[in-house]
Amino acid sequence: MTAHNLNQESLDLHRQHQGKLEVVPKVGVSSSHDLSIAYTPGVAAVSKLLSEEPDAAYDYSIKGNTVLVVTDGSAVLGLGNIGPLGGLPVMEGKCALFKAFAGVNAFPICLDTQDTEEIIETIERIAPVFGGVNLEDIGAPRCFEIEERLKASLDIPVFHDDQHGTAIVVLAATLNALKVVGKNLADVKIVMSGAGAAGCAIAQLLFDAGATDIVMANSRGIIHPKTNPPKTRPELFAMTNKEGLQGELANAMNGADVFIGVSGPNLVTKDMVRSMDKPIVLAMANPDPEIMPQDALDAGAYVVGTGRSDFPNQVNNVLVFPGIFKGALRIRAKSITTKMKLACAYAIANMVEEPVAAHILPDAFDPAVAEAVAIAVEEMCSDEDK
Amino acid sequence: MTAHNLNQESLDLHRQHQGKLEVVPKVGVSSSHDLSIAYTPGVAAVSKLLSEEPDAAYDYSIKGNTVLVVTDGSAVLGLGNIGPLGGLPVMEGKCALFKAFAGVNAFPICLDTQDTEEIIETIERIAPVFGGVNLEDIGAPRCFEIEERLKASLDIPVFHDDQHGTAIVVLAATLNALKVVGKNLADVKIVMSGAGAAGCAIAQLLFDAGATDIVMANSRGIIHPKTNPPKTRPELFAMTNKEGLQGELANAMNGADVFIGVSGPNLVTKDMVRSMDKPIVLAMANPDPEIMPQDALDAGAYVVGTGRSDFPNQVNNVLVFPGIFKGALRIRAKSITTKMKLACAYAIANMVEEPVAAHILPDAFDPAVAEAVAIAVEEMCSDEDK
Repeated sequence: MTAHNLNQESLDLHRQHQGKLEVVPKVGVSSSHDLSIAYTPGVAAVSKLLSEEPDAAYDYSIKGNTVLVVTDGSAVLGLGNIGPLGGLPVMEGKCALFKAFAGVNAFPICLDTQDTEEIIETIERIAPVFGGVNLEDIGAPRCFEIEERLKASLDIPVFHDDQHGTAIVVLAATLNALKVVGKNLADVKIVMSGAGAAGCAIAQLLFDAGATDIVMANSRGIIHPKTNPPKTRPELFAMTNKEGLQGELANAMNGADVFIGVSGPNLVTKDMVRSMDKPIVLAMANPDPEIMPQDALDAGAYVVGTGRSDFPNQVNNVLVFPGIFKGALRIRAKSITTKMKLACAYAIANMVEEPVAAHILPDAFDPAVAEAVAIAVEEMCSDEDK
Repeated sequence: MTAHNLNQESLDLHRQHQGKLEVVPKVGVSSSHDLSIAYTPGVAAVSKLLSEEPDAAYDYSIKGNTVLVVTDGSAVLGLGNIGPLGGLPVMEGKCALFKAFAGVNAFPICLDTQDTEEIIETIERIAPVFGGVNLEDIGAPRCFEIEERLKASLDIPVFHDDQHGTAIVVLAATLNALKVVGKNLADVKIVMSGAGAAGCAIAQLLFDAGATDIVMANSRGIIHPKTNPPKTRPELFAMTNKEGLQGELANAMNGADVFIGVSGPNLVTKDMVRSMDKPIVLAMANPDPEIMPQDALDAGAYVVGTGRSDFPNQVNNVLVFPGIFKGALRIRAKSITTKMKLACAYAIANMVEEPVAAHILPDAFDPAVAEAVAIAVEEMCSDEDK
């Protein structure tokens, strides 16, 4: 199917249904008696309870199973800063996936502001109804501060999926790809193209999981304190590039074991892949990867993954976010910790009993994934996380 | 059924279902192809369209059929200021009714602020996703300013149901009750007990409909410029009490044709009803009316209505809000005007072909009501309202 056809089909679908979500009652409201218990006067007893015992909201209202999916429309897909209405179809899609894959209710809010302070205070003020916050498609570096501040001020989990969902599924893919080539995470050299929000989160989680050698590059080449200093996250970049490499991406890839791309199309050549050691290539730029899978394979790649559904090994955070919130809501976690993120990645990786080159990740449509991820989150939630 | 049983039944219902709403996909997301049109990459075409042509959001996203139901939890039912979580079960109920009665999606937001400026700016910032705003259970006088300012700043209808929904259904009830006793709105003396947000809105809409003689009273007695001056809405109160009555409510009711109560229990005696002319008594304090229906009838009332479902003539704004938003959304009205409110009241009144004392309003569960109201709104929407 051509892109043009997909676009038209998507336009038709959205217009036919007037969007992708609906809000429906779970209880009957078709008789006087129904109304007297779902609404007035009976509901007053529930309202009184919740005002006196706020935690009861998790049991007696939608709060216990509802996530806010919120964007400022500043970094939507590959489209960039297209504003709140531009972001709405993507947020609706995300909410549909929450329900379909994990039974979690999610509602989209697209903010008519791109000011950091206004975003933070608005989310704080609308938070009472929700059991968790999924930040989505908010540009860097704003997204870092927004997430950190909200994690500190709210008592419900706040999760920037573009960062952490991506990081978790990339870690899962990397772990299983390394099994295929018989290497350990602690021993390999990883090169990352893309040093924005997703790239930083991936690098951080790889370090948290035991990686020791990560080199990051952006459009100006390899991140290096002198020749291409980082503009954000100095503590993270200080851990990278332990050999002090400089210059273009190709310099970093020479002899590397793993390439991770969250950057742009066609940045990796066959020669660059040839210069790697038993190459693992996760080229996730969307819709056009850093190198097309067949080219990477022709150049000797052992394992290749992309962000696309039309090639093997789709590295897709739909494997992550439904289950991570399902688990966090079920156990009423106050935050999603590093321990939980690592446990998610291991759970996803372990869904594939014997990883082979063309199958390092579970099927995105396997209903067991979200439940396995949810259980992993619950098991890693200690009392101080609640 | 006793109140205790209703309360317990309501608590059980809410706990069993974990609240009353769910957010569900309207489109399939169970295959790669589904995802490629409901989500990436196809959705990018829809996002692009909406960022370039904002009005297309009404056709291609949930905006066109979704209402924000928002409270600050400051005036919830008869419970008062019980905060955002206390308000949540009521807002969920309201949203359930929107869907059940009019097919309109509504989502509850309970704000963690009761500051007028913060409420206004927060609603402005989350507005893009919605086709209308239903303000709910926000205390007076704050609610007046919030509604006025939002009507000015937003290009979607903003409707404080506690004021205008109530006013519309009371006007409909009054019109049909007057038919029963053979009087005209322009000729009768109307006494209102309760001069808060609902009372003011009812008085305003009665004047808009042609009433000429309204006397209002609050807990300190008849509103009078010298002896009991109003604290808000001076322009409205200046139109009331044209005879310059003073003192207690009973003084106002002597010789009156219509009593409208939005105040508190047991404020009206049989003697007060006896002093009226062919009395019409709409005693809507909840759960205990200003006078019990049988007492009013015993004292000679021709027509009696209450807010309760267990007596005849329930004056309930569920007759109003589903249909008014259904019509406003369908025609993409930018605001709900006085003309539309009057048309709603006439449409509701006209649903009863031959009003009699025990039947002045249509059944709250008659599915034809919301559609009739929606059509009335659409017909009254002129080009400048869009």
